[in-house]
Amino acid sequence: MSFLLKLAEAMKSRDSIVCVGLDPEPDRIPGELGGGPQAALRFLRRIVRATSDHVCCYKPNLAFFERYGPAGIDLLVLTLQTIPNDIPVILDAKRGDVPNTAAAYAEALFTRLKADAATVAPYVGLDAVEPFCERGYVLLLARTSNPGAGDMQDLRVEDGRPVYEHIVERAVARFPADRLGFVVGATYPEEARRLRAIAPDRMFLMPGVGSQGGDVATAIRSALDANAGGVLPSASRSVLYASGGSDYELAAERAVKELKEQANAARTVHV
Amino acid sequence: MSFLLKLAEAMKSRDSIVCVGLDPEPDRIPGELGGGPQAALRFLRRIVRATSDHVCCYKPNLAFFERYGPAGIDLLVLTLQTIPNDIPVILDAKRGDVPNTAAAYAEALFTRLKADAATVAPYVGLDAVEPFCERGYVLLLARTSNPGAGDMQDLRVEDGRPVYEHIVERAVARFPADRLGFVVGATYPEEARRLRAIAPDRMFLMPGVGSQGGDVATAIRSALDANAGGVLPSASRSVLYASGGSDYELAAERAVKELKEQANAARTVHV
Repeated sequence: MSFLLKLAEAMKSRDSIVCVGLDPEPDRIPGELGGGPQAALRFLRRIVRATSDHVCCYKPNLAFFERYGPAGIDLLVLTLQTIPNDIPVILDAKRGDVPNTAAAYAEALFTRLKADAATVAPYVGLDAVEPFCERGYVLLLARTSNPGAGDMQDLRVEDGRPVYEHIVERAVARFPADRLGFVVGATYPEEARRLRAIAPDRMFLMPGVGSQGGDVATAIRSALDANAGGVLPSASRSVLYASGGSDYELAAERAVKELKEQANAARTVHV
Repeated sequence: MSFLLKLAEAMKSRDSIVCVGLDPEPDRIPGELGGGPQAALRFLRRIVRATSDHVCCYKPNLAFFERYGPAGIDLLVLTLQTIPNDIPVILDAKRGDVPNTAAAYAEALFTRLKADAATVAPYVGLDAVEPFCERGYVLLLARTSNPGAGDMQDLRVEDGRPVYEHIVERAVARFPADRLGFVVGATYPEEARRLRAIAPDRMFLMPGVGSQGGDVATAIRSALDANAGGVLPSASRSVLYASGGSDYELAAERAVKELKEQANAARTVHV
């Protein structure tokens, strides 16, 4: 099933448009779970169980698995197995390389790890995005959520518009809506509004809700297009580490329910 | 030992400035070696043995290991163990993510996999490059070797200069020469010449020699700065798969020796 269709069904069955990032941070996993990748697996399994009634998508970021060394990839595979089959998975990998190499990354993410979607970086060029689009659904970095995002994304091109707008415009012209959407940081609602005008029918994954300072209602109002392009706000640390203590499951469930309700209120008002 | 120092010593001891990319492609590994990651390990071990007297650096691209699935990371670790200790390793990963996540990637590459250097993508911003520079030597993508490189790297900024020049200028201003150099495709000698003027004291890794069409002598002449910034031409497929048959070791040795001699001739003429 295509990513967008699976996502739409999960949004309906959970009445939620919220995505949760699964990013295990060794220092923040409750000590009672032990240490190393085993502790991370126990932690993530319980986080998934506590949140899966309230999310439409999970987004593991590969960096946090690779940090465990060779055991990290097994941790990722086992974590993916704990996710209910009807919830789609975005592998947040931000890969990007020349076409021959991009094809190998695409195979790793979509064929080996069975991702429903993957994040991809645009710097190498659109010929390097193509091998991903051929194999699965791509979320292309447009505007990232970090404070330094502007260093290169805001460079003004000769027509007075920033680089990130040009990227989106070119990607929209080249790849169909059922194959490619964009990553637009929830921390930059003004930029999201501008991008929505350029890409009315695209899905926007909006990371940075919570710990990074993005407000879910503001992000949704800036990027929702009631009739076409969807919006997928994503939180990681503010859910996973909502409590530092042994009540982490309950705290994560509470955090994600609150996010879901805020998101639903924002989209209802908008429509 | 720092990457640049280790590289300089390997260049001297091998009388070579050539880097070889270790990119296992299942379809191109001689059938007599069997299949799967075991065959790739046998193949790469013999390629390293056949070439290690004539190279100053190896550059495994992570995509080609990740394509093997979870076994791929073990394949990478075992491949790294076959490389002589005095030859530095660039992990070609092209990672790039927001700072908190970039720190996890940097730990994966430099701490877990003990890379001497790693390639990093600039799109997310310079705050996202910082965690890599803090932990090891970074080769930042400036101009990639693919035909579509210009899609975004050539966008003209308001001052009339392309995006990739701005990236290099900003990175030079922010990070010291012993922490950061650039990836400049050997397929774009004119661009390399312009970048050398902006970054006279930086190391340029120049992939794309051979199969991708880059001429090693042209690349070196365009990018060598006799007294400061070095140049590191890199070939992968044209060495690894120089022969499709059972004489692949001899063919790889011949290909890399020829490359070394061409490179040495070009740098001698230059100086």
